[in-house]
Amino acid sequence: MTTLYHYPLCPFSRKIRLLLGEQKIGVDLIVERYWENRKEFIKLNPSGEVPILIFDEVTFCGQYAISEYIEFKYKNILPEDTKTKAENRRLIDWFDNKFYREVSKIIINERVEKRFRSIEKGGGLPNTELIRMAIGTMNNHLKYMEYLLERRFWLVTNKIELADLTAASHISCLDYLGDIPWEKFPEIKLWYSRIKSRPSFRSILTDKIVGIPPRGNYALLDF
Amino acid sequence: MTTLYHYPLCPFSRKIRLLLGEQKIGVDLIVERYWENRKEFIKLNPSGEVPILIFDEVTFCGQYAISEYIEFKYKNILPEDTKTKAENRRLIDWFDNKFYREVSKIIINERVEKRFRSIEKGGGLPNTELIRMAIGTMNNHLKYMEYLLERRFWLVTNKIELADLTAASHISCLDYLGDIPWEKFPEIKLWYSRIKSRPSFRSILTDKIVGIPPRGNYALLDF
Repeated sequence: MTTLYHYPLCPFSRKIRLLLGEQKIGVDLIVERYWENRKEFIKLNPSGEVPILIFDEVTFCGQYAISEYIEFKYKNILPEDTKTKAENRRLIDWFDNKFYREVSKIIINERVEKRFRSIEKGGGLPNTELIRMAIGTMNNHLKYMEYLLERRFWLVTNKIELADLTAASHISCLDYLGDIPWEKFPEIKLWYSRIKSRPSFRSILTDKIVGIPPRGNYALLDF
Repeated sequence: MTTLYHYPLCPFSRKIRLLLGEQKIGVDLIVERYWENRKEFIKLNPSGEVPILIFDEVTFCGQYAISEYIEFKYKNILPEDTKTKAENRRLIDWFDNKFYREVSKIIINERVEKRFRSIEKGGGLPNTELIRMAIGTMNNHLKYMEYLLERRFWLVTNKIELADLTAASHISCLDYLGDIPWEKFPEIKLWYSRIKSRPSFRSILTDKIVGIPPRGNYALLDF
């Protein structure tokens, strides 16, 4: 049995769902509101973070351990060539660290997690100034991505690879919250509509968070 | 020719220096004050971050791309066994992401980078309240590490592995700045003194930042 502990608006969880979908690995999904620090969950991953994948009788904590294992086992989500593999990992690092720290973590915390946390644990109303700054930074990141996609069909080569799944997982969370200015980034929009149409993306488009319905055309393939 | 662009008090740069040292790969070191966004440097890595390794005629941007390539090529910094490899990656993720975001990034920014940045780019006096909070969080992380080291000789197995090099790179930056309360964590102290004695650590112990001399026993093997 393969089990994934995830949170719908966690970009790292989405990345693993996309990855498993692309590999056609069936999985039981368990939603974990990780900020609640549930005891049994902390036992599985003491860092208290999602995703966790139980697969091949091993518990893999974190998207890094999971994605590298899947790559090791199936050898088809990262190109074999050293240069394009390094280029994938450069962009994965960019989205999972820089973009996450400067953009997605802030926006998801302010718009989503704060609603569910108690005041003592950092809950409360969103800080609109922080959101405004993160959206400004996001636009700079997206300008660079647009520049790449003017030159490449997918982010690295002419084939969908792990860098694309990674970027799409962050962008799709922000799209759910209505924060992507699609009209400014036509190449990203084309790229995203290609990803959205893949079977691996289907379950992500049906995600719903209580009290926070998806904005705009989130669930539409033709947006 | 192998070249590493690094910054002495960047934990990711230190991790790669340790890794290259453990593999006995000779390297030309170039110090990059990455916050200055030097044009030629941005051309190498548009994200503007260190480390960058030029190796085997490929430019590897970021510690993730570098360390996974070195592992792929030499196959001796991560154990082969799936379970202990996943455990390494769980802890690497922990230090490079959670610990970095909550502790090392904040302290290094406040104590070091702010001195060198202009006021418009976020420079100025350190925010002592932020440092105090980060040190509080650091103590919680270290408690968990102490718990692990009470049970294991190195962080994962009885052999030094990538998780150890990763943790040591973050901890050594904080030790340079005098922020590790060694007396509270005897197991971490023993573990760190073992790492400090390794030849791969030597060049890190000679690091000096202008205007910020190393604190306490930073450079002493017997501390």
